[in-house]
Amino acid sequence: MAEPFIHRLRVRYSECDLQGVLFNVNYLAYIDHTITEMWRAAYGGYTVMLGRGADIVVAEANLRYRGAARFDEEVVVEATVTNLGTTSITTAFRFFDAAGELLLDADIRHVWIDPATRAKVPMPEWGREGLAPWHVPATE
Amino acid sequence: MAEPFIHRLRVRYSECDLQGVLFNVNYLAYIDHTITEMWRAAYGGYTVMLGRGADIVVAEANLRYRGAARFDEEVVVEATVTNLGTTSITTAFRFFDAAGELLLDADIRHVWIDPATRAKVPMPEWGREGLAPWHVPATE
Amino acid sequence: MAEPFIHRLRVRYSECDLQGVLFNVNYLAYIDHTITEMWRAAYGGYTVMLGRGADIVVAEANLRYRGAARFDEEVVVEATVTNLGTTSITTAFRFFDAAGELLLDADIRHVWIDPATRAKVPMPEWGREGLAPWHVPATE
Amino acid sequence: MAEPFIHRLRVRYSECDLQGVLFNVNYLAYIDHTITEMWRAAYGGYTVMLGRGADIVVAEANLRYRGAARFDEEVVVEATVTNLGTTSITTAFRFFDAAGELLLDADIRHVWIDPATRAKVPMPEWGREGLAPWHVPATE
Repeated sequence: MAEPFIHRLRVRYSECDLQGVLFNVNYLAYIDHTITEMWRAAYGGYTVMLGRGADIVVAEANLRYRGAARFDEEVVVEATVTNLGTTSITTAFRFFDAAGELLLDADIRHVWIDPATRAKVPMPEWGREGLAPWHVPATE
Repeated sequence: MAEPFIHRLRVRYSECDLQGVLFNVNYLAYIDHTITEMWRAAYGGYTVMLGRGADIVVAEANLRYRGAARFDEEVVVEATVTNLGTTSITTAFRFFDAAGELLLDADIRHVWIDPATRAKVPMPEWGREGLAPWHVPATE
Repeated sequence: MAEPFIHRLRVRYSECDLQGVLFNVNYLAYIDHTITEMWRAAYGGYTVMLGRGADIVVAEANLRYRGAARFDEEVVVEATVTNLGTTSITTAFRFFDAAGELLLDADIRHVWIDPATRAKVPMPEWGREGLAPWHVPATE
Repeated sequence: MAEPFIHRLRVRYSECDLQGVLFNVNYLAYIDHTITEMWRAAYGGYTVMLGRGADIVVAEANLRYRGAARFDEEVVVEATVTNLGTTSITTAFRFFDAAGELLLDADIRHVWIDPATRAKVPMPEWGREGLAPWHVPATE
């Protein structure tokens, strides 16, 4: 059983809202920050991906808010790849606070594209292999 | 049949990413900006809501990306209330570019809470009445 | 005597901080939003500038905070060009709240560059002419 | 001679602009992130400060851009306190890229206020003592 990819983010002052908690939009930003780190670990990162002639766009994002992260708190983000499709990747996320309480669960679907035409292309083999360590197929 | 609530947003330079388009996270920010305006039209806005002892949090957000908005382009956002529940509101969004192409469809669910206890509370009657003009029950 | 360029911005929820006011960083973002609009009025905007083979970078920014803008408040930004140099432009800003109270004064210096080499280049004549209507030389 | 406070920040995708570099506004955000960490080291952080009945606002910020930080690059920020006045603190910053090239130098002035009245108040002794390790008086 694969272990999730782990990324820790400390909640910045600029990321909080008038309610004193991490602004709802910034959970999606945290997903982006985490996937940047995961892709760095998987195949050298986004810039390497571009250098190999591949690009990726977001096709879908679904977020379920379970709690609230407070300013200056360290949030632990767990990410697993739940689907490695022909042209797309689905990644699932769970956010926890320092006490281990669930703050968010979410999933995001990315699609591999040709940077020139913006058309869908098959995921390159190096992409599939790079992400394999965190691949935990969803059981539904 | 109710008309959607319409809000227009011009894509700011700071909202774009390296791909030259509106950064995926900022679509969720645009939803927040639009709902701020919708609530202003519905019952005087978020500050009025707080002044009446009510608050609201995001419970769920689902975004399906269909296209890409470019820097300086005006995006038209249509919002309709698809569910007025006991304690929650679901609002659906469609984003269009200037040519009328669909950029995004999304829905977001908010829950009414007591600001002091953070517990769910029934939607106040003025909330239900204020949002009624844009209430288009989802037909599934 | 030239009139300032005027731009109005309503303070977004996402732009406020835990103190309930526009986050200090976002005043600099508002300067960027305003100058985007000013350049649109001056010569068709940033994209037109790029299309003519010119680009611009920020060289210096100085902000003096005088008050605090609140959520949902409309801020009036006045901009004047205080220096049209050989390779640089200095633009001065004053931010006011709805009651006419000064919130910020600031100036920012941009430098014209060659997009390929990133080296300084003389300001093109169309740039100088486009900005002339708001040129109010600083009196020191 | 005091050593500067050091904070490292990796440039996030969401922080870059269409020119492929850290957006000019985000340097000011990086200053805010760095000072949050410095104040944590100095006296337990912003929340501790609020708990002791003190608050702080930005009075002035001056930024001189010398280079450009790229996506995914680690930026080293050096901060020193150049003035500990009666009611204000001035902090100076230098940003470097991985190769040691200067990206930015800047200074920011904060003022201590009473959270209730928003009036200036003298800097508390614990503030002065906490920041002393990084106090390098400006020589002019």
